[in-house]
Amino acid sequence: MQILHTLDEMHKLVSAARRGGKSIGLVPTMGFFHAGHLSLMQQARKDNDLVVVSVFVNPTQFGPSEDFKTYPRDMDHDARLAESVGVDVIFNPSPEEMYPEGYSTYVEVERFSKGLCGASRPGHFRGVATVCLKLMNITGPDRAYFGMKDYQQLRVVQRMAADLNLCVQIVPMPIFREPDGLAMSSRNTYLNPAERRAALILKKALEYAQRLIDEGVTSADELRIRVVEFISTEPLAQIDYVEAVDPDTLDCIKTLDHNAVLALAVKIGNTRLIDNTILKV
Amino acid sequence: MQILHTLDEMHKLVSAARRGGKSIGLVPTMGFFHAGHLSLMQQARKDNDLVVVSVFVNPTQFGPSEDFKTYPRDMDHDARLAESVGVDVIFNPSPEEMYPEGYSTYVEVERFSKGLCGASRPGHFRGVATVCLKLMNITGPDRAYFGMKDYQQLRVVQRMAADLNLCVQIVPMPIFREPDGLAMSSRNTYLNPAERRAALILKKALEYAQRLIDEGVTSADELRIRVVEFISTEPLAQIDYVEAVDPDTLDCIKTLDHNAVLALAVKIGNTRLIDNTILKV
Repeated sequence: MQILHTLDEMHKLVSAARRGGKSIGLVPTMGFFHAGHLSLMQQARKDNDLVVVSVFVNPTQFGPSEDFKTYPRDMDHDARLAESVGVDVIFNPSPEEMYPEGYSTYVEVERFSKGLCGASRPGHFRGVATVCLKLMNITGPDRAYFGMKDYQQLRVVQRMAADLNLCVQIVPMPIFREPDGLAMSSRNTYLNPAERRAALILKKALEYAQRLIDEGVTSADELRIRVVEFISTEPLAQIDYVEAVDPDTLDCIKTLDHNAVLALAVKIGNTRLIDNTILKV
Repeated sequence: MQILHTLDEMHKLVSAARRGGKSIGLVPTMGFFHAGHLSLMQQARKDNDLVVVSVFVNPTQFGPSEDFKTYPRDMDHDARLAESVGVDVIFNPSPEEMYPEGYSTYVEVERFSKGLCGASRPGHFRGVATVCLKLMNITGPDRAYFGMKDYQQLRVVQRMAADLNLCVQIVPMPIFREPDGLAMSSRNTYLNPAERRAALILKKALEYAQRLIDEGVTSADELRIRVVEFISTEPLAQIDYVEAVDPDTLDCIKTLDHNAVLALAVKIGNTRLIDNTILKV
């Protein structure tokens, strides 16, 4: 497995692969791999001749008071894990390589970036869309893999790829969970033992919402209010949002008469966690 | 020569050309060709195996009170001219093909879009950058050709291509002028005979500015003021802007101690014309 740091190196490698008629799979990540990341790499390994994993903690998707500096990083460990699942290349550029002096270009996926995490993290999806477009232009993938835990990110990237006529298939991958149900996230390492236990409230709230649907609740407002009450029973939890949205448009839903995504963002102590599920109506 | 209207048709044609190892040149236009357009096509013909010319009056780069509806169109004439200089394919999509229902993605080249035409045409360069990126993604060119009359557009596209890591060479092409000096533009057809004569003030103002430099003027403010006075001698002319800017950054210049672009936008009657020159210091 190779670890490349520059655009030039990547360009040479990708051009050679293309000339050789090889298909390319890209897994864009911020590193600090867990089993969720590895499941994306394994799928990419099955589908493509060349598997590229980018490891880049992207400064433009963090707000000024967010955790860019403290976001966990462990390149040696990541490299061993990636190699163990058959990744061919890690692309690990510096911020200066990605955003040189005078950098000026940003991509906005307007309608999909405003609600949910976009409301509490202004500029976040502008940074996500921009870096994903750059990484796809650099690596020229046939397929790019995104986890469904970041559901809004997935929809932003899918919409961008369609709107900008990119020749890449965006492959959504299911949420990976710890045995007790907590959605895997590199940010879970921020949790102390009490917070780790409290964090289960997210998954439990999603299950509670499905039970409410099964019991006949059809008002999205009622669902929202009862899920908020449910989460509020956990003293360490502070809700950012609880929303039922259309799976395609991410527009808020009023009546639960077709499948919806229930999306949560909850702070546990100082750690902001997200989770979601597709409610079966 | 083929005229294609859909993304599917273009995708098939471009994929086949790529597989055959052919190089592709793109000339993005809004149609109603003049000799300036043809010079871009001729250069593209020299440099590439396959020459694609897009003809698309792009709604997203026009303001609500601008001339989108009245912008001149003549596809039959354009097709004959393009064929006469050896173009292989005209890509002529509908607005619905380019911006289907739910379209949400826009590209901003922030620093380069604010001054000059960006100040009087808010959103214009967002539309230009977005459609150029889409057209380049659709046609996958090795080279794309842009006239220097739209100097700010050229810099916006160059900056976008560099920032977004596009594998395309942006080729700047010199301004084409009528025998009396008027820069060629599809909008020149809006001018009545008196306005057509008055429109020469733009080119004369650029020559006047160079004479001022040659006579030792070094203050960009003085140059600006004297060029404004010069243009104001033409009763049909109404100045939008006169600016001396850095050729790379488009930042306003205070002292003319290195080469600068002098850029003008002037309304002649109801027709807004632009022109520019690189001042030799």
